[in-house]
Amino acid sequence: MINISGRSSVEPFHAMDVLAAATKRKREGHPVISMAVGQPAHGAPAAVLAAARSGLANAAIGYTDALGTSDLRQSIAGHYADRYGLTIHPDRIAITTGSSAGFNLAFLALFDSGDRVVITRPGYPAYRNILQALGLVPVEIAVSEETQFTLTPSLLEEAAVRHGTIAGVLLASPANPTGTVTGRAALTDLVAYCETNGITFISDEIYHGLSYSGGETSALSLTDKAVIVNSFSKYYCMTGWRIGWMVLPEQAIRPVERLAQSLYISPPELSQIAACAAFGATDELEAIKRGYEANRALLMKRLPEIGFSIASPMDGAFYAYADASRFTNDSMEFARTMLTQIDVAATPGRDFDPVEGHRTIRFSYAGSYQEMEEAVDRISDWLAT
Amino acid sequence: MINISGRSSVEPFHAMDVLAAATKRKREGHPVISMAVGQPAHGAPAAVLAAARSGLANAAIGYTDALGTSDLRQSIAGHYADRYGLTIHPDRIAITTGSSAGFNLAFLALFDSGDRVVITRPGYPAYRNILQALGLVPVEIAVSEETQFTLTPSLLEEAAVRHGTIAGVLLASPANPTGTVTGRAALTDLVAYCETNGITFISDEIYHGLSYSGGETSALSLTDKAVIVNSFSKYYCMTGWRIGWMVLPEQAIRPVERLAQSLYISPPELSQIAACAAFGATDELEAIKRGYEANRALLMKRLPEIGFSIASPMDGAFYAYADASRFTNDSMEFARTMLTQIDVAATPGRDFDPVEGHRTIRFSYAGSYQEMEEAVDRISDWLAT
Repeated sequence: MINISGRSSVEPFHAMDVLAAATKRKREGHPVISMAVGQPAHGAPAAVLAAARSGLANAAIGYTDALGTSDLRQSIAGHYADRYGLTIHPDRIAITTGSSAGFNLAFLALFDSGDRVVITRPGYPAYRNILQALGLVPVEIAVSEETQFTLTPSLLEEAAVRHGTIAGVLLASPANPTGTVTGRAALTDLVAYCETNGITFISDEIYHGLSYSGGETSALSLTDKAVIVNSFSKYYCMTGWRIGWMVLPEQAIRPVERLAQSLYISPPELSQIAACAAFGATDELEAIKRGYEANRALLMKRLPEIGFSIASPMDGAFYAYADASRFTNDSMEFARTMLTQIDVAATPGRDFDPVEGHRTIRFSYAGSYQEMEEAVDRISDWLAT
Repeated sequence: MINISGRSSVEPFHAMDVLAAATKRKREGHPVISMAVGQPAHGAPAAVLAAARSGLANAAIGYTDALGTSDLRQSIAGHYADRYGLTIHPDRIAITTGSSAGFNLAFLALFDSGDRVVITRPGYPAYRNILQALGLVPVEIAVSEETQFTLTPSLLEEAAVRHGTIAGVLLASPANPTGTVTGRAALTDLVAYCETNGITFISDEIYHGLSYSGGETSALSLTDKAVIVNSFSKYYCMTGWRIGWMVLPEQAIRPVERLAQSLYISPPELSQIAACAAFGATDELEAIKRGYEANRALLMKRLPEIGFSIASPMDGAFYAYADASRFTNDSMEFARTMLTQIDVAATPGRDFDPVEGHRTIRFSYAGSYQEMEEAVDRISDWLAT
């Protein structure tokens, strides 16, 4: 017998469990269609692969500075200038081992044990799980059509009354799993409320670049006190490279650096070299995005036809968050059966919403159009029997 | 103003600060010799680079299972069979984003807030820093010649009397920065003491393969209750790839998997593909190791000649932990000046020993022989003036 900690009893990330089950079935020869994890079917763009090949040939691939190479930090600063018209000093940019490291570092640098951090319900499950593992208290606020599936100052006000002082607010826009894009005005209100009330605002901008009905606002354009978390995993199709970044308020740079030195040493160097080329791959990436738009249109039409109403706006990211209550009251079991019977992997809503998620399913539509069609056909036939 | 957490006030990892300063000087054109971070000057072996090239050409590079690819888990199981004659089920092997992730996951999975974990002083600074960031209490036990620079049951007994119940013991062998190799008998005693007293034993085996005076014992050959942390960074020359592994007791597998799913998603895939080839690169790696032996012989002779007595055995790893008290009572300032005046980067002892480290310096000898010679010459001339 060995001792296992209480804090390791976090909820599993069910999408990752589905991934593991799907990987196993693929290895056994089953024709699995993967709509479970938030992962582009496209690999990294050609320019990124070329940069990686050249890095392999010419660089020793070693530790870099804990906050990343100056080349990549400068590239990202250039991206903020080009895309948002913002001047950000490269010193404020910290390269991270995926957005996962960004969240971990932000939580450790900004909050002390027992602090309350607001997240949305539904929302990305790792927020809740990392907060709990680190001894923080996630305060989940249910979002719904009433507030366009995002947070508002009055929801935060209510949460503070009900739970006590809020130390932080973490909001993703576009959001996972709902696809919600929080508009500029709504974001401005939230940021102002947080500043007035001494609440640290963390803006998860990992799905920037993937909106289908208008632009996105970076919290950076509203304040220099927010912490921005971003990544090359989604729009840039670099999941497995584990490479992301944060933009930090001046005061947070050194605390994050100190933590990163010991917790991560440095982000993977080859991924940093490769990522420098990502901002030059816009044509290829926009073509991939047009593929998502086609997939989105397909799912918006077909899913309701076969009995799944769409539970949220799908304005951004690449997810259909579907109401499966016509078929199940146990989304975990539903997802498991769907995988073993028809080899379609999707994520049980339980991941995103511990309260209502037993009747929802998230379908990622970042695969090919053919896969989406085939998946919907399989599900349709399966549900008919 | 934003709020910064108390727990981010961990000590910097000074070696990483020296690395950042050295990187900056290199970029400015200075002829820096890097003896600061524990990093082989050799890049990854040819077979690893070939596997990476082929992975780039043929794989999509995506998320893998949170505990890693089955190929790499099986390769590592094979390594335990080949090298140690041990049969380890691949399910017990968790691939991690460097040993850094291994420590973080082990600490979170095995210990709860406030638990005491014994480490050696001097020792690897990230142990202490990660423990503190996670709300655990590092109990540093000074090791010296008296116990061959390693822990003993009676040192643990004393620590428990003085500090209270010990939840875990973390020991590296070969050790950083001392180079100490804990012999099989001593390790057996420690493991037995820990089992009897309900203490979890974590064995850091990252420097296995790098011993110069006999073999190493894996704690796995003594018990299946210890947690093993290892990595491809040192012997296998793959620092910047951020790839390592743990071997877990049955009971710890699922807790570690749950935490890894949310905290890391998965280790970098290309590094996993590449690392599969590392165990086939023994000839190249043994040649590199012979280079370290030559460097070691050089430093063992020259450092004392120029006034640094060697403070510990140098039986393994690739560090000379030197007593600099003839020259300084402030190793931080000494390291800073040495870098700016003669472009030799070494790590202040403060990193490894908060009590005695003001008068020690660690030189990493994982560079080329020419660099080591040049560095010693520069230091010798510098100290003479």
